[in-house]
Amino acid sequence: MISSETLELSLQLLRQPSVTPIDHTCQEIMAKRLEKIGFNIENMRFDDVDNLWARKGTESPVFCFAGHTDVVPTGHLDAWNSDPFVPEIRDGKLYGRGSADMKTALAAMVIASERFVAKHPNHKGSIAFLITSDEEGPSINGTVKVIETLEARNEKMDWCLVGEPSSTNKLGDIIKNGRRGSLNANLTIKGKQGHVAYPHLAINPIHTASKAIAELCETVWDEGNEYFPATSFQISNINAGTGATNVVPGSMNLLINWRYSTEVTAEELKVRAIEILDRHQVDYDIQWTLSGLPFLTPVGELVNAAKNAIHNVTGIKAELSTSGGTSDGRFIAPTGAQVLELGVLNATIHQINEHVDVSDLEPLAEIYEQILENLLA
Amino acid sequence: MISSETLELSLQLLRQPSVTPIDHTCQEIMAKRLEKIGFNIENMRFDDVDNLWARKGTESPVFCFAGHTDVVPTGHLDAWNSDPFVPEIRDGKLYGRGSADMKTALAAMVIASERFVAKHPNHKGSIAFLITSDEEGPSINGTVKVIETLEARNEKMDWCLVGEPSSTNKLGDIIKNGRRGSLNANLTIKGKQGHVAYPHLAINPIHTASKAIAELCETVWDEGNEYFPATSFQISNINAGTGATNVVPGSMNLLINWRYSTEVTAEELKVRAIEILDRHQVDYDIQWTLSGLPFLTPVGELVNAAKNAIHNVTGIKAELSTSGGTSDGRFIAPTGAQVLELGVLNATIHQINEHVDVSDLEPLAEIYEQILENLLA
Repeated sequence: MISSETLELSLQLLRQPSVTPIDHTCQEIMAKRLEKIGFNIENMRFDDVDNLWARKGTESPVFCFAGHTDVVPTGHLDAWNSDPFVPEIRDGKLYGRGSADMKTALAAMVIASERFVAKHPNHKGSIAFLITSDEEGPSINGTVKVIETLEARNEKMDWCLVGEPSSTNKLGDIIKNGRRGSLNANLTIKGKQGHVAYPHLAINPIHTASKAIAELCETVWDEGNEYFPATSFQISNINAGTGATNVVPGSMNLLINWRYSTEVTAEELKVRAIEILDRHQVDYDIQWTLSGLPFLTPVGELVNAAKNAIHNVTGIKAELSTSGGTSDGRFIAPTGAQVLELGVLNATIHQINEHVDVSDLEPLAEIYEQILENLLA
Repeated sequence: MISSETLELSLQLLRQPSVTPIDHTCQEIMAKRLEKIGFNIENMRFDDVDNLWARKGTESPVFCFAGHTDVVPTGHLDAWNSDPFVPEIRDGKLYGRGSADMKTALAAMVIASERFVAKHPNHKGSIAFLITSDEEGPSINGTVKVIETLEARNEKMDWCLVGEPSSTNKLGDIIKNGRRGSLNANLTIKGKQGHVAYPHLAINPIHTASKAIAELCETVWDEGNEYFPATSFQISNINAGTGATNVVPGSMNLLINWRYSTEVTAEELKVRAIEILDRHQVDYDIQWTLSGLPFLTPVGELVNAAKNAIHNVTGIKAELSTSGGTSDGRFIAPTGAQVLELGVLNATIHQINEHVDVSDLEPLAEIYEQILENLLA
């Protein structure tokens, strides 16, 4: 195993038990390195969440690395083959909580910036870091609040690279250039409780809603488009009944989620769902929560810079994708910035024995550095 | 308020807090009265359940009063206007747990027997009492075990009157001359857990079963017949999901109950349900529990004796019905006995402030006595 600067800094960050929303000095470790190469450091703490806004330069265009120092909980420690906060290398793999999501990417960002600044002390525009410690938590006092602060003082970024683990089979095979929107519904079907032996005196919400639910499950909401897969509809929870076998339940609750493309709007989805419920004469209450608008960064300067960098370093032709879960990119895209997600393999994120290939760390730093070269050299 | 023998004995029984399966001396109170008029007393205790088998006479035909001394729990005492085990008369109504279900009927049975025996010391056949204390509980060590004991010694009854509260609007308006069968299914729909953002990697059991469930809910299982309403199908419980809004559940559980007529068999219902599940290609496990076969006592000696008695005492023409829940009659009918249920109004059974009209108590004892007259005088 050849040691490397990216590995060394990764190990330093991985030793911090920064379970969301605790940053546990990770941002300080990064800030000290960035300060040395000319970054202006701003610590933005909101409530119990540490955030770091660091910027080198005052000019446009602004390229920003975005990410988070917090990690998801470890789960049962006994299930890990080594302490999740004592990073360990076995068979070429670096094990530890946050190794994939996303402390190695944070290290690669810092190393890439150091090398780029050393080569181009008078680069164009600005380099920035937007680092939070609540991406894995409620996402209220992190990126959202930093973006609000920047917007309030009219500080804009042009390009933003979020270091989320986007790769699927090989480093750099997938760039996420957008995310689907996410719409939640909390649906309560109203009935009338009673005894199963006297069904004519009761209204069984499981029965009255059954055809509407079957139709909602079968509905094709759209076909997707060039960038987005078709909108998906999933009922994640359904619950009715007292546990007793002789009681007709008085109500039924369903939690529903749409991950939707740019071919529909949240408003259209609501109207269509309500049309189905009404047509089947279901008696219901529904509460809607829009947890993320869809965003898309079409092919342009940032996509091309990333694709070229990946190809130069790894020989791979990266594919664009908008599938998968939400990330803090959804809060940055509305400012008008081009936003990409590019990082290590996501196969083991949030799992026991989370790990990355050590051999991916230096190439990731090189990819990040070349993106800076392509945009700001 | 005019006192009466039936009221006095009812009060004595209602003062015993005989929450299922505790008899709390109720059977002893009854047995002492019956012993005095020539009944042979057998206490049949099975496990934690007291049962009473009392018989006067050794000849056929055998007329049996059946019932239970146990009552359902009171629920929150604060919700009662008076102590559920300190019976109280207000505005002509007798309040107390068990006043309707079914201690006043037990009192009426004893009083009716005393009066009948006084008038007809050498009556035909035999009078019997089959009294349990677990009708409101699991119904394992009660009537079932007594019937097994009687069958084993080839002791038969010809007519059985269960004192369950059958009346709906006026005393004696409804005689239950049968009960529907009750078939339960515990249905587990199998899927594959996953993240809602990656639905192609998951199998959502709520979705895969939705059409089959809609069809089960819509199915007409039969049209009923002269004595039985149409078979009813009710899903009492449906549950799937972890609570999290971003997880596709790995399985879904449903509890299903059929109350079925004599037009179908439990076996036919199973075959038809399975055909629907299979046709929709649902992946499932199903466990069946048959909690009661249907039974029916067509018009005959017992029905006529009861109808005449009701008409003589109240002027009402009783209707026959097989609707409603199960009772211990389902365990007695398979012996070949004619079985009826006839008792006070069921409007408040199992509820807070359970009560009966005091003015119904003496008429009920008179009806029971006249039934004895009609069959055994």
